[in-house]
Amino acid sequence: MSAEITIALDAMGGDRAPDAVLRGANIALQRFPQARFLLYGVQSRLAGALEKLPRLSERATIHHTDELVTGDARPSAALRTGRRSSMRLAIDAVASGDADCVVSAGNTGALMAMAKFGLRMLPGIDRPAMASFFPTQRGESVLLDLGANVECDAENLVQFALMGDVFARTVLGLLHPTVALLNVGSEEAKGNDAVRGAALRLRAPGVPIRFQGFVEGDGIAAGAADVIVTDGFTGNIALKTAEGTARLFTDFLRASFQSSLTARLGYLLAHRALRKLRSRLDPRRYNGAVFLGLDGICVKSHGGADALGFANAIGVAVDMKLNGFLEKIRDGLAQLSDISTPQDKPQSAAL
Amino acid sequence: MSAEITIALDAMGGDRAPDAVLRGANIALQRFPQARFLLYGVQSRLAGALEKLPRLSERATIHHTDELVTGDARPSAALRTGRRSSMRLAIDAVASGDADCVVSAGNTGALMAMAKFGLRMLPGIDRPAMASFFPTQRGESVLLDLGANVECDAENLVQFALMGDVFARTVLGLLHPTVALLNVGSEEAKGNDAVRGAALRLRAPGVPIRFQGFVEGDGIAAGAADVIVTDGFTGNIALKTAEGTARLFTDFLRASFQSSLTARLGYLLAHRALRKLRSRLDPRRYNGAVFLGLDGICVKSHGGADALGFANAIGVAVDMKLNGFLEKIRDGLAQLSDISTPQDKPQSAAL
Repeated sequence: MSAEITIALDAMGGDRAPDAVLRGANIALQRFPQARFLLYGVQSRLAGALEKLPRLSERATIHHTDELVTGDARPSAALRTGRRSSMRLAIDAVASGDADCVVSAGNTGALMAMAKFGLRMLPGIDRPAMASFFPTQRGESVLLDLGANVECDAENLVQFALMGDVFARTVLGLLHPTVALLNVGSEEAKGNDAVRGAALRLRAPGVPIRFQGFVEGDGIAAGAADVIVTDGFTGNIALKTAEGTARLFTDFLRASFQSSLTARLGYLLAHRALRKLRSRLDPRRYNGAVFLGLDGICVKSHGGADALGFANAIGVAVDMKLNGFLEKIRDGLAQLSDISTPQDKPQSAAL
Repeated sequence: MSAEITIALDAMGGDRAPDAVLRGANIALQRFPQARFLLYGVQSRLAGALEKLPRLSERATIHHTDELVTGDARPSAALRTGRRSSMRLAIDAVASGDADCVVSAGNTGALMAMAKFGLRMLPGIDRPAMASFFPTQRGESVLLDLGANVECDAENLVQFALMGDVFARTVLGLLHPTVALLNVGSEEAKGNDAVRGAALRLRAPGVPIRFQGFVEGDGIAAGAADVIVTDGFTGNIALKTAEGTARLFTDFLRASFQSSLTARLGYLLAHRALRKLRSRLDPRRYNGAVFLGLDGICVKSHGGADALGFANAIGVAVDMKLNGFLEKIRDGLAQLSDISTPQDKPQSAAL
């Protein structure tokens, strides 16, 4: 019934390529039977893997290339020399209109550089941002930027807020997501120039964003807002600090359960319930970081993702396409520029 | 046998003052029988609480004042109008030499402003930093700055590295702690000017610090270094993100154990083992953030700390005094300036 959607996959990207990529596509096909896949990579390897996946092979075409971007390639080098790489060809398929979106588990920096070059920026966006979901006490929220921009000014943060808002609407399905800026305190005077300036702009009347002010680091996991905006330096460190803390907790918990016979027995009894906990915090559920601000849909899967994780990354890309992410971003940018142009100068002066 | 040590306490600071403060001092007295306490606060309230603590009352003297710094006071206002406050008088006791260190669970910003004014900065330190311990896979590490400085340059970070190194030596008892800079990647080219510049300086030959380069956010909980240095914006957000993640995990775990009868039974069996986990991650164990860079020892307890938590904050202050923190910082600064002066210019130019 629904219109076909075409997904370009960098079949050679990631630690478990091409297997996890193809099996991930196969899983995604169950959720999106209207999907069609363009697979970029080494013909012989992909054909071999496809043979075991008859359903996928009916909906996929292989586009052969011998070249690939290695995990340690520098973005600038990859951009210069990787024109025939599986990553680049998958991006080019979106640029040419052959595909609706691209997913890769390859080198993040190279993917960002190539996507920026191949897909171009949306007019009105100065810099792309990386966004992802994370689990909270209230469900799921969006955090951005996760590392694309090490230094950001107020205007960048305002654009990130807008992009995060549209992302939460199109992928989490929220009608009016709340948006907050990550800061070291909730009072207006707290923080650096960039966050204070962004808050001033986001509080201006008519801005089409449900802005909730500042939240502190513990507000991320608390789900204090649906979208949490920060610069790429802080966002990257917050995300990885959360990952490290979760790992610490899991390891300590495992050690506790193994520390005595009664504890082991307790674990056996609570096992089913704990599996639910694990599934709730399963990083595969939150796989798929999105490059926002590009004139095209590009999703980055974690390099170590398995088939299920990769399928979720594909799901994010498809949801963005199906729910008109790019069109909504363009609308939002137009509204924002209508509002901010006349008020821009006096606001900056008020700082 | 050991020499007496005098601790000034802001007995009116914190959510549970003066009770948690006095009972905390009572607990600390068991570990440090040579301690003597100067208690600043309302005579009648302190005398009433002391009556129930006969051992402490032998080692404590009350210094009456009616004034206190409220939790919402602005630092500048507290500094101007709080000259007779319990917080300020406790700090002044260190400045005048009547006490060896001061501990307060009161308003952080006010305490920092008053301590900076009352105790002055150490010569050679541009800005104070807040440091604290946190639990890791390998034991405990030190993180700084936790929010005293929202914006930092390379020189600030180098000074924080030195102060963190001395803090880990004097309080964690490490002979040669490893020191790392928090960054968005481990490669030399990653990060902003401040972290790259600080890394260059810390790698210079002769710097008396075991510098390990960059660590990412997940390195904090992994215990990738004994001392992890960052600016106050990032450090504050990393610390609170970790706290929020730990709370999310605990809440999800509790819900899992309550989700079925068998899970509850499992919890009962594993209860003792889980108590160990809780104790290992107990925030009270890590209570006591230190203001480093001041010419005096000032420790901030969490405002909500109970007696045990406050006792740990006192323990941090006493350990710093007993292990010659201030003398070691002075030595370290002298070594650092010997090394950095001749090389400073070419290094900056190399950036």
